[in-house]
Amino acid sequence: MPHIPLDVNLPGITGILNYRTETALPIRQLTQILLRGDSTLTEGERELIATVVSYGNECQFCTAAHTAAADILLGEKETAEKVKKDPLHAPVSEKMKGLLDIARAVQVSGKNVTTSMIDKAKAAGATDLEIHDTVLIAALFSLYNRLVDGFASVTPAEPAFYERLAVILKDKGYLPSENRYAGLKA
Amino acid sequence: MPHIPLDVNLPGITGILNYRTETALPIRQLTQILLRGDSTLTEGERELIATVVSYGNECQFCTAAHTAAADILLGEKETAEKVKKDPLHAPVSEKMKGLLDIARAVQVSGKNVTTSMIDKAKAAGATDLEIHDTVLIAALFSLYNRLVDGFASVTPAEPAFYERLAVILKDKGYLPSENRYAGLKA
Repeated sequence: MPHIPLDVNLPGITGILNYRTETALPIRQLTQILLRGDSTLTEGERELIATVVSYGNECQFCTAAHTAAADILLGEKETAEKVKKDPLHAPVSEKMKGLLDIARAVQVSGKNVTTSMIDKAKAAGATDLEIHDTVLIAALFSLYNRLVDGFASVTPAEPAFYERLAVILKDKGYLPSENRYAGLKA
Repeated sequence: MPHIPLDVNLPGITGILNYRTETALPIRQLTQILLRGDSTLTEGERELIATVVSYGNECQFCTAAHTAAADILLGEKETAEKVKKDPLHAPVSEKMKGLLDIARAVQVSGKNVTTSMIDKAKAAGATDLEIHDTVLIAALFSLYNRLVDGFASVTPAEPAFYERLAVILKDKGYLPSENRYAGLKA
């Protein structure tokens, strides 16, 4: 049971963001800019960064949600699975491998980001802005993972839930919208 | 040297937030609501939550900055020092002890927040909203600490720098403002 009274129809992060919409709004706005705003990284690539951080933090809800979002945006399920479990052989660019390494370091501690990691990503073509956004996405999901697990919110078991949520994240993004979660419940 | 080109006159988080103001704005807005908005926790108490999380993450810049902010808001330096180094004997209410325990757990992982921690805080008078805000402040500073160290931003050595920064945080809060950092450099 969640530690604070959350809407039982809104599992995971959704009920937490609904609990105090005043603080949820800037969190949603930041997420929208980082994951859906103009970027030289695709939306799928940015969802992969969210996925590996959530996976590193063992946040089941966030991992399932952003894996499903990456899958739907990439049009296949292999890449997200590989970046989580066998990153060396994941079918992503060398630049993305470098950025995902940085994200994984940030997930543990900012201090774990080394100059050699940064140099490697830059040598593979990563720009300063891409590095900035990668660190910030990793830090933002370190926040999200702590909310989802810190409130002991409900984690649905059925994969179909996350597929429905991924459609919302793909079609509506992260900003608040009316009837946002209509159709989320089976 | 920072991993991305940050303004040399803006150490710690200040240059990072200046690097991409579009993403900095919602981060600043969230911080303003949580640390300076209406609350049943005092501004000093909320700065103590930021302080213990930054201390747990060993983020020197954030620890020094929010210790100085707590000190100036509380009018003394003992409390911030004690909540970091000897929390059992810190001169804060039982409610604050409970909330600081929750914040320290969130700093490590959301999963570390236990029902007994929540029950203890509630028994000492903590409301659901205070628990919500405590978890969110702890998650937000887990984000900040990762930015400051993840970019290897500059950490000034002299305590006077943080005392000047604390005056800005006390008088101007966290929202962007013109000439915000005038007078920060010695």
